[in-house]
Amino acid sequence: MSAQISTQAVSIDLQDRSYAIAIGAPLIDNPDTFAGLPKASAALVVSNTTVAPLYAATLQAALAPHYAAVHLVVLPDGEAFKTWQTLNLIFDALLAHHCDRKTVLFALGGGVVGDMTGFAAASYMRGVPFVQVPTTLLAQVDSSVGGKTGINHPLGKNMVGAFYQPQRVVCDLSTLHTLPSREVSAGLAEIIKYGPIADMAFLDWLEGHLGALRTHDLSALAHAVRRSCEIKAHVVAQDEREGGLRAILNFGHTFGHAIEAGMGYGQWLHGEAVGCGMVMAAHLSQRLGLVDTAFVARLTRLVQGAGLPTVGPVLDAHDNAGRYLDLMRVDKKAEGGDIRFVLIDGPGKACVRGAPDVLVRQVIDACCSTQA
Amino acid sequence: MSAQISTQAVSIDLQDRSYAIAIGAPLIDNPDTFAGLPKASAALVVSNTTVAPLYAATLQAALAPHYAAVHLVVLPDGEAFKTWQTLNLIFDALLAHHCDRKTVLFALGGGVVGDMTGFAAASYMRGVPFVQVPTTLLAQVDSSVGGKTGINHPLGKNMVGAFYQPQRVVCDLSTLHTLPSREVSAGLAEIIKYGPIADMAFLDWLEGHLGALRTHDLSALAHAVRRSCEIKAHVVAQDEREGGLRAILNFGHTFGHAIEAGMGYGQWLHGEAVGCGMVMAAHLSQRLGLVDTAFVARLTRLVQGAGLPTVGPVLDAHDNAGRYLDLMRVDKKAEGGDIRFVLIDGPGKACVRGAPDVLVRQVIDACCSTQA
Repeated sequence: MSAQISTQAVSIDLQDRSYAIAIGAPLIDNPDTFAGLPKASAALVVSNTTVAPLYAATLQAALAPHYAAVHLVVLPDGEAFKTWQTLNLIFDALLAHHCDRKTVLFALGGGVVGDMTGFAAASYMRGVPFVQVPTTLLAQVDSSVGGKTGINHPLGKNMVGAFYQPQRVVCDLSTLHTLPSREVSAGLAEIIKYGPIADMAFLDWLEGHLGALRTHDLSALAHAVRRSCEIKAHVVAQDEREGGLRAILNFGHTFGHAIEAGMGYGQWLHGEAVGCGMVMAAHLSQRLGLVDTAFVARLTRLVQGAGLPTVGPVLDAHDNAGRYLDLMRVDKKAEGGDIRFVLIDGPGKACVRGAPDVLVRQVIDACCSTQA
Repeated sequence: MSAQISTQAVSIDLQDRSYAIAIGAPLIDNPDTFAGLPKASAALVVSNTTVAPLYAATLQAALAPHYAAVHLVVLPDGEAFKTWQTLNLIFDALLAHHCDRKTVLFALGGGVVGDMTGFAAASYMRGVPFVQVPTTLLAQVDSSVGGKTGINHPLGKNMVGAFYQPQRVVCDLSTLHTLPSREVSAGLAEIIKYGPIADMAFLDWLEGHLGALRTHDLSALAHAVRRSCEIKAHVVAQDEREGGLRAILNFGHTFGHAIEAGMGYGQWLHGEAVGCGMVMAAHLSQRLGLVDTAFVARLTRLVQGAGLPTVGPVLDAHDNAGRYLDLMRVDKKAEGGDIRFVLIDGPGKACVRGAPDVLVRQVIDACCSTQA
């Protein structure tokens, strides 16, 4: 952790649920990073088998001055474990340690750890405070911010959960040094997303800095994480519980969730499915006359340049489009069985709307291959 | 359902989460009872194997004019089934029926059905609306009001859940006609509770009407349910998330939860454990000099007159008091391992405070018997 990046703060304005996102390197080794959180006699660090050996001891040492006891629970790693059974390991640890309703939880890991720790915090004794300490690029730019928590159900992703805001988000960029390149690419998918839906200047910048981001350049990462968090904070502040606007952050996710569920959770990384899903959603936008083919080609190039798949998997050899449609009908945005897509309504602007099945089928047929 | 009681309404004031409690007989057979709820294409009635055969068809018929589809899921009956496995049956049903995030859930049953349906509503797609239709006296006067939802963990009662308010509470007094007398007594425990903590005039009234209540007199039930809901609504409006005051509603519950957990969930009914727990808490209040022995005797007589146990079970033949203390340390009110008791601080007034272990042990020794 020799390289340093001075700490920047992005704030997310949600009245009495407001909080700060600290972005810098290093952060998790410093007790000051965790000053001013709610007082408690105990903290519980929740991590997984991959991240805990790398960073749990460092974080526990930084928390030690603040809490009389700092416990640790280590979960199995991966989307396939984002289940009630794994969530229950957190409750087991809390109860085994006699943790009371003031106990602060710290989510140390990627999106799966963050989503499950947040839901455990929302539910343990009907709510205890928690802090997000994301160690993957995807979690730093997206899943740790905004209070969406939950677990998967065999019939749908993130179907059980809560809107529950953390007390603070701590994005330590130095933890990204240990991130495998496949995970860096997955994180880039959620970064790229912010361009077409909200900020084409950011998309321009990304086209010039993909290489730097993929080789862990700290300055480039700092800018990408900060700008992503700013856009997300701005959207979430206007629509915390996804009554409308917030759904635009799900660009690429309707097709993406179908890929994840159809392949079996954990086969494709969430970011990989979202990357491919954005390409499919761009194609659908084009077929609806909302953007031109040049825009689709530009976005496809960027997704490909990030090291992400741009061709969808065949989920059913007999009726692939039908299988995608079935899976998309259980999306949380669906209403009365009608799928709602996040589409690009001209560069830098998103809309949420339905689309004729026949057009959706054409997009799926054009975008999928058994070679994927 | 020939006997009628005109409908009364108690409102609970929680800003944008405010709602009404309708009390009358009959109610669940009338579509008007359910007018004005959030619009949705589907409703899901959640009930159990005891209540569903009696009232599910009636409720479904009354809901039919409001929703294109009214589904039903029937859970196993009893506190022993207040688990994640049972909760998951609700999610399974919601997903099998492709229920979207506007679907309205209706909890038709007692406290267990209400707590689980509320938690399912809080968590399904991160929150859908729900309505409480309590069919037990205990649920009508206590558990259906105030938004406490959740499930049990093997190591503690209601350890996993959410504060999540219903859209409406419908207390149909005519459903109490089918309630077994043991369940009526259990409900009376939560009614009696409101006297010592808030309203001694109500305690006077109860002493004169126990017989009428135990024989299902509709006028007496209407008064008891309304007054109980009024007191609970008043307390919850001041402290929705139990930062302080709301804890007084847990009078009798600290000892009671230890009895329930120690005996195994479902052996003692929740109301039976609370009845006995109130007697124990009154004894502790007396030993701390907060009330006199005449008050303890009066409360004990009333609990006994309601058909409830007043002597606690022996949970451990070798160190019974130690076992109670261990179980009470996982109570949600405990802080840093210190048990917090709801005590009577003079008739009609409650306080929340700790007590020396030695005094608590004396109370347990004096109040428990293997004959219980």
